[in-house]
Amino acid sequence: MLRALELAATPGVPLGPNPRVGCVLLADDGSTIAEGHHRGAGTAHAEADALARAGGRARGATAVVTLEPCAHTGRTGPCAVALREAGVRRVVFAQADPNPVAAGGAQVLREAGIDVEQGLLEVQARELNRVWTFAQEHGRPFVTWKFATTLDGRSAAADGTSRWVSSRAARLDTHRLRALADTMLVGTGTVLVDDPALTVRDEHDRPLPHQPLRAVMGERDLPADRRVLDDAAETVHLRTRDPREALAALRERERQHVFLEGGPTLAAAFLTAGLVDEVVAYVAPMLLGAGLAAVGDLGITTIAAAFRPGVTDITVLDGIDGEQPNVRLTLVPSTTTTGAS
Amino acid sequence: MLRALELAATPGVPLGPNPRVGCVLLADDGSTIAEGHHRGAGTAHAEADALARAGGRARGATAVVTLEPCAHTGRTGPCAVALREAGVRRVVFAQADPNPVAAGGAQVLREAGIDVEQGLLEVQARELNRVWTFAQEHGRPFVTWKFATTLDGRSAAADGTSRWVSSRAARLDTHRLRALADTMLVGTGTVLVDDPALTVRDEHDRPLPHQPLRAVMGERDLPADRRVLDDAAETVHLRTRDPREALAALRERERQHVFLEGGPTLAAAFLTAGLVDEVVAYVAPMLLGAGLAAVGDLGITTIAAAFRPGVTDITVLDGIDGEQPNVRLTLVPSTTTTGAS
Repeated sequence: MLRALELAATPGVPLGPNPRVGCVLLADDGSTIAEGHHRGAGTAHAEADALARAGGRARGATAVVTLEPCAHTGRTGPCAVALREAGVRRVVFAQADPNPVAAGGAQVLREAGIDVEQGLLEVQARELNRVWTFAQEHGRPFVTWKFATTLDGRSAAADGTSRWVSSRAARLDTHRLRALADTMLVGTGTVLVDDPALTVRDEHDRPLPHQPLRAVMGERDLPADRRVLDDAAETVHLRTRDPREALAALRERERQHVFLEGGPTLAAAFLTAGLVDEVVAYVAPMLLGAGLAAVGDLGITTIAAAFRPGVTDITVLDGIDGEQPNVRLTLVPSTTTTGAS
Repeated sequence: MLRALELAATPGVPLGPNPRVGCVLLADDGSTIAEGHHRGAGTAHAEADALARAGGRARGATAVVTLEPCAHTGRTGPCAVALREAGVRRVVFAQADPNPVAAGGAQVLREAGIDVEQGLLEVQARELNRVWTFAQEHGRPFVTWKFATTLDGRSAAADGTSRWVSSRAARLDTHRLRALADTMLVGTGTVLVDDPALTVRDEHDRPLPHQPLRAVMGERDLPADRRVLDDAAETVHLRTRDPREALAALRERERQHVFLEGGPTLAAAFLTAGLVDEVVAYVAPMLLGAGLAAVGDLGITTIAAAFRPGVTDITVLDGIDGEQPNVRLTLVPSTTTTGAS
């Protein structure tokens, strides 16, 4: 199973709506017959990949796979059926399929008299597809809210200037995290005021080949000259101010990981709706004393009601070229850890 | 000189208005004749301490001392004269005396035909008496401004509640730092609203034997039932709202290190007057969205004018008893580093 997890995590697999899956076909003596892994939407599933490599040698084999073989016909045929027809005798999988459409593979296999075992290294398998698993179980994309703040909680000065609150090191780190998401989300206000490109760029400020979808939510029209409307990446305008509606619309587009970079009002709307699953905060060691608050009103009036997420990481990002260090805090609201193992 | 610095830093020396000083008397062959160190105001200076132990053996010796021997008669006689009269032949000292009243010892010694060398390990000697040196050179106490803030820059919720923004670990750390200062300073507003004890307490919440002076600045009267007026420590009410006047009054009381724990308005007054020499910020990983700002208006309107102190330390304070970690940032405004070596 460790080898199957390794295969699933093969570097270079393009991010997409599908989970990372690895499969190893083993002979009775424990030797490997064939290996396979999934390479992204539209390509063979890990089991099909391994079966194709094994050919007739799959008969009587044990299939070790990181995710429950699927039972539905999507862009490819159901893997449970393919395993059965290849004559596989035993299937060991780590994570049960959280997707109600694809689930049922174990059932199909058992009905065919195949020996099925599940749960081996399940935690690791879930972690490998953390965001995908979340999206399947919650029926909406995972939301990472990123913000940059001064030590006194300001995201911009009184005149609106905010370049740059965070250091170059923090901005590079942000691009690294953007690249892990499939969707950038801001409000129309941010587009109108700050006109961000919302692209993922490397340390030379060059756009990466794969760009997340740029999503702008809100009812106001976007002037055609806004950078978010250029051809550097795909852009969608979601004409709603309701976080839940926006996420539903993104879910329809098979989005699984939203990187929320909106202003304080949008952030507050997501926070109060309980729709922030991860907070990434960059704290810059400067003071403004006045200016735009990093977070809008959350309806909290007393200290006991403060929003207190759990800290998963605190990292000091050393300054580049003489800049001061910034601190990155990664936080997980306790209310949304439900459902995770 | 390293040994002299060690002597100067002897643990248990009570903090007071005097510098820490160590002295070693060496024979011609480099062997130690006697050692001495200063034990606080009213006791013998380090040189006098060493000379007393050496007796007649001081004749012809080399005195190695961390600070320029004083030339004035204060609570004790001038050390330069004592060294001369003991027949010391050579004096090596690290730091020149920054106190204009006490300085001149090197001159006295040279005029007596004694060989004088200065500057050996001067940086270390200045660091040993960092706060005292600052106070001598600037004619006012060193000011450490401490504040606790949420990740979004709030020091209290909208209803005024602030217990506790920072974790228990951060509060214990604050008491450790309070113990290093000789004066606690807040505004009348803080006393009226929060009624703090302003004492230094140990991890069992017991007051330490030595308490800093409690200073309250502002023009409003203090009700007699305020905790700051109890007998747990000495308290002084400075009837001014001007940071410069308050520091001058504290200087008259031989105060050298003020630990400023006032609210946002007082902090802003000190910051804008350029009278903050060190910032200690505790950041708690919680969000309030509204409430009291950690820092008042600094008159800054654009990001380029942000107050950007230099970071000297960032430490993650792990939570105690399941609390979340807090981050402590120690910062030094670049404008007040002038004068330090």
